[in-house]
Amino acid sequence: MALKIAIQGIKGSNHHQVANEFFGEDVELVECLSFDELIHQLMTGYADKAVMAIENSIAGSIIPNYALVYNNDLHIIGEHYLNIHHHLMALEGQKIEDIQEVHSHPMALLQCKDFLKAYSHIKLVESVDTAETAQRIEKDNLKGIAAIAPKVASELYNLEVVASEIQTISNNATRFIILKKENKELPEEEINKASLRFVLDHKRGSLAAVLNVMSDCNLNLTKIQSLPVIEQPWKYSFFVDVTFLKYKDYKKAKALLQIMAEEFKVLGEYKNARG
Amino acid sequence: MALKIAIQGIKGSNHHQVANEFFGEDVELVECLSFDELIHQLMTGYADKAVMAIENSIAGSIIPNYALVYNNDLHIIGEHYLNIHHHLMALEGQKIEDIQEVHSHPMALLQCKDFLKAYSHIKLVESVDTAETAQRIEKDNLKGIAAIAPKVASELYNLEVVASEIQTISNNATRFIILKKENKELPEEEINKASLRFVLDHKRGSLAAVLNVMSDCNLNLTKIQSLPVIEQPWKYSFFVDVTFLKYKDYKKAKALLQIMAEEFKVLGEYKNARG
Repeated sequence: MALKIAIQGIKGSNHHQVANEFFGEDVELVECLSFDELIHQLMTGYADKAVMAIENSIAGSIIPNYALVYNNDLHIIGEHYLNIHHHLMALEGQKIEDIQEVHSHPMALLQCKDFLKAYSHIKLVESVDTAETAQRIEKDNLKGIAAIAPKVASELYNLEVVASEIQTISNNATRFIILKKENKELPEEEINKASLRFVLDHKRGSLAAVLNVMSDCNLNLTKIQSLPVIEQPWKYSFFVDVTFLKYKDYKKAKALLQIMAEEFKVLGEYKNARG
Repeated sequence: MALKIAIQGIKGSNHHQVANEFFGEDVELVECLSFDELIHQLMTGYADKAVMAIENSIAGSIIPNYALVYNNDLHIIGEHYLNIHHHLMALEGQKIEDIQEVHSHPMALLQCKDFLKAYSHIKLVESVDTAETAQRIEKDNLKGIAAIAPKVASELYNLEVVASEIQTISNNATRFIILKKENKELPEEEINKASLRFVLDHKRGSLAAVLNVMSDCNLNLTKIQSLPVIEQPWKYSFFVDVTFLKYKDYKKAKALLQIMAEEFKVLGEYKNARG
């Protein structure tokens, strides 16, 4: 039986692309129109694993997604980077002058801002998913409307690419995480990255002390993000990613951090995709 | 002549509320339908100052706004916290059962997710501004459509509050920054907070070393956020907010950080609104 992978969006989306690159093509996709639904499919056991965008170099972390992982006790069992390519696509024969509206995900619109600025006659409309608009244009034979979506969407939904590679920054890698309900996907010797979450008091030097321990234990920090703890004005939660060469170094740091920080939690231990 | 204050959104928005609380009511508002336009109004000198949302406890930092401040060499001259209250509003006489669509800013929709879940017949539609939909409902006499907006919008646009305080988390403070083209708004003795941006190598302990200096100079960290530097895979930029009691302590740390970090830049020096 094929593995069931929940993705945000429909076939032809970036999440679909990541599912293929990470798991191969022999998977059954569970299309979800929101991240909440994606989590729901995983929690109910309908999907075996899920693919979820978590950060990119333009917008930073998608904090609500961190909260979904944390609040539902899910485990990050892998990560994958995808270079995002945006293409403007419409019904066959449509030229850029014919386009009155561009529909896409807010993030995609943001990433193509410079290109779109040159066409002030085009109205920007936010939609839930990049590929969903492409599908809708074909289904409803929508003239004057273009989608911003990955190339594969133009093939799946028989659209013509009006302008290709319209993203402002060519090197726009988005990081996706692979989620599962249970942990223990990999043996310790294959693990060289971890995602952690902990809480610290607003006390001078408290974060410095934690980072010193990490550094002493040979951990590299690849990401750090503070977030005020709601209802507790003087506390901060931190989402931190670390890489390491030896699992035993990480294990030692983990033991120390459990003592030093409050509400210490491992969100996932996995293989660094940029090793 | 009244001070011209650029706000994101129109009258009745949260930005409007912040402008009133920070500057008093005797200001001329410059309504902008995007953060880009807000920056444009400031850069061209049409607006004297601007109010810009920068982070909240649910979604974290609005990273693209940090980039706008940084890339345009703007200065943060103040900050303000607003407790966000969301109300569902529609034409007079409309009940919740009559509502088919709720339009609001994606962030507002996210913050009212739990309330909206209970009304699965209602379709959620993302719009640019919380107050703009309220205005449109009145203008076009739109039945079956509700806006999520601050209370003041219901008064300005003659709508009835169908459900009040529908936000999931009651203590949802959003932080706004006040921007200006020129610096030097306050004398040194009134400054006790600063926003900094710098770049570090992906080298074990490099951030710990910087935080140690801050701690040694009696600076408190109230926010930290890493972001991969685009096109430079092994470098990270950091956005950091610090508070301090003595400007001379901060001045010393600043001198040290200028040597230790690359591309060190002060985004603003101002008065801590949570002093």
